[in-house]
Amino acid sequence: MDSLEESKRLAREKIRQSLPDRQWLWDGIRANDKVRIGKAITLMESTLPDHRELAQALLNDCLPYSGKSLRIGITGVPGVGKSTFINCYAKLLVEKGHQVAILAVDPSSKQTGGSILGDKTRMEDIFADPKVLIRPSPAGETLGGVTARTRESILLCEAAGYDRILVETVGVGQSETSVHGMTDLFLLLMLPGAGDELQGIKRGIMEMADILVVHKSDGSNMEKSAAAMNGYKKALHLFPPTESGWTPRVIAASSMENRGIAEVHELIEQYYLHTVSNGYFAEQRKNQLKEWFQMALEMQFLSYIKEHPELQVQLDEIRRAVAEGKASPSKSAEDFVKRLLDRDATR
Amino acid sequence: MDSLEESKRLAREKIRQSLPDRQWLWDGIRANDKVRIGKAITLMESTLPDHRELAQALLNDCLPYSGKSLRIGITGVPGVGKSTFINCYAKLLVEKGHQVAILAVDPSSKQTGGSILGDKTRMEDIFADPKVLIRPSPAGETLGGVTARTRESILLCEAAGYDRILVETVGVGQSETSVHGMTDLFLLLMLPGAGDELQGIKRGIMEMADILVVHKSDGSNMEKSAAAMNGYKKALHLFPPTESGWTPRVIAASSMENRGIAEVHELIEQYYLHTVSNGYFAEQRKNQLKEWFQMALEMQFLSYIKEHPELQVQLDEIRRAVAEGKASPSKSAEDFVKRLLDRDATR
Repeated sequence: MDSLEESKRLAREKIRQSLPDRQWLWDGIRANDKVRIGKAITLMESTLPDHRELAQALLNDCLPYSGKSLRIGITGVPGVGKSTFINCYAKLLVEKGHQVAILAVDPSSKQTGGSILGDKTRMEDIFADPKVLIRPSPAGETLGGVTARTRESILLCEAAGYDRILVETVGVGQSETSVHGMTDLFLLLMLPGAGDELQGIKRGIMEMADILVVHKSDGSNMEKSAAAMNGYKKALHLFPPTESGWTPRVIAASSMENRGIAEVHELIEQYYLHTVSNGYFAEQRKNQLKEWFQMALEMQFLSYIKEHPELQVQLDEIRRAVAEGKASPSKSAEDFVKRLLDRDATR
Repeated sequence: MDSLEESKRLAREKIRQSLPDRQWLWDGIRANDKVRIGKAITLMESTLPDHRELAQALLNDCLPYSGKSLRIGITGVPGVGKSTFINCYAKLLVEKGHQVAILAVDPSSKQTGGSILGDKTRMEDIFADPKVLIRPSPAGETLGGVTARTRESILLCEAAGYDRILVETVGVGQSETSVHGMTDLFLLLMLPGAGDELQGIKRGIMEMADILVVHKSDGSNMEKSAAAMNGYKKALHLFPPTESGWTPRVIAASSMENRGIAEVHELIEQYYLHTVSNGYFAEQRKNQLKEWFQMALEMQFLSYIKEHPELQVQLDEIRRAVAEGKASPSKSAEDFVKRLLDRDATR
């Protein structure tokens, strides 16, 4: 064994020895010990094989205890007041006896690990509450990676007793579709105004919304808010019906003046009842699990390629030729996969 | 060699001998010989390895001659009059000197090979025109398969000189997203009316539309049509801006009375100019090629599994456990892929 191999072995040995105990973590999760929950989520976000292994074992422990929550996706452009809204709403949920986990999906903030939940001052009312868990976006990953980690974190939080999971995202990219695919209900915050409020929101997001909140409906905004409400109501009326049989609603709210938050809460609970009783809730959960698996399957395949630099180099070259119209996308893909998977046959 | 192997070999030999000549097909494509173009597309749709091989070779021949067209996605619920609209529009295009290929993406009609373009009586004006090529949806395939085949057919038609490609789809499923991903412009036909016209259209489709045509705006529909136009115009105004910088338009048309078709045509050509001059056209084409390759890569991986029944059985079992919440989606996928790709290591 050469010295490089030896130092690698030692490094790995060190990681193993520093791994927390599975039972200790599990007890912490079940007891809502936030330090140990935090450690467990960190393990899930790690890409080190030993960390992943322990995380996956923990996830299996969580599975039978998970699923018993309402998962709410919350989006809106920066400046719409997501943090203050979540602060208000989560406070209300705690008052009603719920335990609230707040997660974020924001792959844009690769280094900082989530700019969305970064501003603690806007969440001061709930930050220290034992019944509230706040967790920023996993850092340094692709959207696929962030999505997978957040899905795992949801299960873990549920096993820890959290029955309202808020998943926050910034309405400017593809993250919304992925958050839509891991939550039961999708809430869109909009600014009151005439057109400007749409700058930055990606197309297609409005049609995913089950509830549309015209936020910052306070002070000098009241008139603009009423006009915006009217416009959105008409627009939603022109949208095709939802699969859930739920009619999307528009509602005004102000977190600053704490107005409309209780009404938003009631609408959300109404949606919950509606979809549970017509079977859509359970059906959607099942479909989301299947989609998750399908995505994981494809991601694992791509990960395998990434972990083998010589394959990655080949693939980059093919991609370039394809984008320039010099190689057929289908034939190139076929050849590549055949070469990769039929290695046995050709040896 | 046992008799089963021997008969398989003979069958394959027979297929090989019956294969048309590559040069003969290629000459036919370049000469716009519809019989040979038809044969080439049929080869592309085949799943037989020898057929695929020849088809892929032909596709490589086509590549340098392809790309020079405007690809238009057309959708709308059954009954909106897609066939009559396409008949009118294609006729106009031919008059303007274009060569028009009409393809369909309709995975729902697995047996018949495309119900959309089935009714020839509605296309009688263009059916026999040498400058119009009509091709129904590839049969007996998944959406992924149909999408891939249609993309290939587009390239082939372009190499044959067709410079306006219409890709028709039924507005009820996921096909729209895939057609959106292979065309330059997306046209949505709507019925005039108050709400009913949305029944059957899937959410998210409206936001993909670059041009929204209120069709069947004739006779007793005129009043309803004006109201619908108004409503959609307001709704589109509330939508976020498009990536192309193009403002989606609403326009009324009647194929029966041949009114508004020329205006639709002009809008389409305006869009073409707009996106070519701001660079969006070329950028989108490049991205679509990359996406196609990425999808093909994933599809080829899944195809490989499908071609190995023992893997398929394993996968079905895992999927069931995942949907029931008994197995972790991420861990299950990881294990499966590892087992599949690391075969060499474990042997």
